[in-house]
Amino acid sequence: MNNHEPINNSYLISSKIVRAIRAVIGEKKNTLHEPTFKGKEWEYVKDCLDSGFVSSVGQYVEKFENKITEYTGAKYAIAVVNGTAALHLGLIVAGVKFDDEVLVPSLTFVATANAVSYIGAKPHFVDINAKDFGIDAKKLTAYLKEISEIKNGVCVNKKTGRVIRAIVPMHVFGHPCNLKELLPLCNEFKIKVVEDAAEALGSFYDKKHMGTFGNLGVISFNGNKTITTGGGGVILTDDVELATHAKHLSTTAKSNHPFAYIHTEIGFNYRMPNLNAALGCAQLEQLPELLNSKRRLYRAYSKAFSEISEVSLFQEPPLCQSNYWLQTLLLNEEFMSCRKEIIENCIEDGISTRPVWKPLHKLSMYENSPASSLPITNNLSERIINIPSSAGLV
Amino acid sequence: MNNHEPINNSYLISSKIVRAIRAVIGEKKNTLHEPTFKGKEWEYVKDCLDSGFVSSVGQYVEKFENKITEYTGAKYAIAVVNGTAALHLGLIVAGVKFDDEVLVPSLTFVATANAVSYIGAKPHFVDINAKDFGIDAKKLTAYLKEISEIKNGVCVNKKTGRVIRAIVPMHVFGHPCNLKELLPLCNEFKIKVVEDAAEALGSFYDKKHMGTFGNLGVISFNGNKTITTGGGGVILTDDVELATHAKHLSTTAKSNHPFAYIHTEIGFNYRMPNLNAALGCAQLEQLPELLNSKRRLYRAYSKAFSEISEVSLFQEPPLCQSNYWLQTLLLNEEFMSCRKEIIENCIEDGISTRPVWKPLHKLSMYENSPASSLPITNNLSERIINIPSSAGLV
Repeated sequence: MNNHEPINNSYLISSKIVRAIRAVIGEKKNTLHEPTFKGKEWEYVKDCLDSGFVSSVGQYVEKFENKITEYTGAKYAIAVVNGTAALHLGLIVAGVKFDDEVLVPSLTFVATANAVSYIGAKPHFVDINAKDFGIDAKKLTAYLKEISEIKNGVCVNKKTGRVIRAIVPMHVFGHPCNLKELLPLCNEFKIKVVEDAAEALGSFYDKKHMGTFGNLGVISFNGNKTITTGGGGVILTDDVELATHAKHLSTTAKSNHPFAYIHTEIGFNYRMPNLNAALGCAQLEQLPELLNSKRRLYRAYSKAFSEISEVSLFQEPPLCQSNYWLQTLLLNEEFMSCRKEIIENCIEDGISTRPVWKPLHKLSMYENSPASSLPITNNLSERIINIPSSAGLV
Repeated sequence: MNNHEPINNSYLISSKIVRAIRAVIGEKKNTLHEPTFKGKEWEYVKDCLDSGFVSSVGQYVEKFENKITEYTGAKYAIAVVNGTAALHLGLIVAGVKFDDEVLVPSLTFVATANAVSYIGAKPHFVDINAKDFGIDAKKLTAYLKEISEIKNGVCVNKKTGRVIRAIVPMHVFGHPCNLKELLPLCNEFKIKVVEDAAEALGSFYDKKHMGTFGNLGVISFNGNKTITTGGGGVILTDDVELATHAKHLSTTAKSNHPFAYIHTEIGFNYRMPNLNAALGCAQLEQLPELLNSKRRLYRAYSKAFSEISEVSLFQEPPLCQSNYWLQTLLLNEEFMSCRKEIIENCIEDGISTRPVWKPLHKLSMYENSPASSLPITNNLSERIINIPSSAGLV
């Protein structure tokens, strides 16, 4: 094995990347993604403290939910403590039960699969495509025809005997995946759709907001997201029954009574605190400007990287408007083996970069989970590099 | 059945209760319990917003944890999103597994049993005593001798065949239960102790803080607690391995690496956001004064209720210092049937009151759970009335 070639390549590519990024953001200190607080954050948070309502009851939670439905077009929004909790509840109300299987991509944040595991269901990994990093609908069709059959109105995995109850399409780094291809397939195979739009606030497919295509969708407002509530998430749905159930479960499934403490099922302490919602209300007011800023950053990067042949900058797919949450470089296949050193060199040079997540089917707790062949997942997982993406960098 | 007697009694007792409470708090608007923000809440929260670190990373989370260890005497504290999450993680790191049994009281907030259920373990309800509303150690000894046996170093329920892995003593309304009797028994029966001190910040048994007696303990900072972080909880332990594991699980079980996303087991998104911890730091500074205020309220109620023979005001048990989180009336047995009307009358008269929780073994999802006989639980659950308890009322 010749060690020199990759080391030299790593150095060369790192230098080009650092130069391109510096050309865009100058000498600014940078992180991968940090929030921007330039609106009424102080005002609303102070008002919340002054009201005394900082916890699970308060006007900001409802206001936040209303603003979210207004912005996304979803009929209902239920604000919860974080995106993971949103996904957990979304799967439960979609009907996922102990020992079911749920189709998930492997190239996603671990919460996508963990939320399935919390129910005692099994994540079943399926492959993605290189166009939008989303689940590959054509491949999935062939795969489901091969491994499953419809029995008593549900999709059964012929090999494991388990019901394949739901699928969690994930919009990686905020880039919309093609649900128009996926939805008819899910319908045909009787599989419920819970969209993991954790990273996709402000992303649209054909002018429809991500998270509003499936039976339910979830968005995250963690500190590293486009807007933040400290910790927070929301469940979106157009279905009043699912919405009512999700809200009920998020508030310990307490029945509506003026004073008695009666709970109707096993519920959760998942309601978003009012304090966090107050922050969220202020953040949402700035969303259009934040999205503009991130789009400016994309355009600047696009120009700066146009002549670097070793990498390509990810561009929103056709018909899509991406929030460009994390700007994404794809390293050419021939340089895959250099990625680790490139990232180390960039960090050394003061540029925050990171690889995509280790694919979940390679993590110890999921390595024996059911899975289709995952060639594109495996390939992309070695090639993706995220670069500084905060709003306000340009 | 004679309906007149109870109705008249209800009216009579309600009037006396309303009068006694008004004698203490005057005509103040009251709730059962609300937070007091008179310290540096705004200063710290503003500082947190200005820092940009509002989420799972930030100095306030660590500061909050340090202040908690200082105050409680626990060696380690791990701050999480709420008390339920703390209990869930506490049980996991104590070793509770799918299909285990966990001994819990039935007269507790539903989260105590729910946290057991999240793991796929079964709550097994045991009776309490009337002295401190805690699990009755003597009764439990006899019960365990009857139903269990030690096999391969663990306690096995002879009837169900399941391992009885842990017990969750709960300090009801902040009043310490007698762990000195319970701990040797748990030791003998190889049962781990996870204390539910959700309501017991500022409560001590023999000068030792509640939540520090068991293998682990948890405290809640929900909006209705003595101090609040909006939503929040903490896990206490003296065991470095349990502490490390709990923190690891609370932060998605992500391994410590400068940039790679590798997770070693199924973890959770349970870390307390920095924004909430900032609020908590300010609140903790006021804890001594808040506890003094709640103790003044107890003394004033004690005087006001001294001549009302139909109810008794709960007093901290011997050797204990209670935080008097919720002030508690115990209705004499002969008037049990009047409770609902008494509460309705009090509320009608502008006095916030509530009954204790419906005992968990009577909720639909837990009615078939294993249980000892529960005579004291059933009796007390019909007699308890909580009355306005906020600090600052006197």
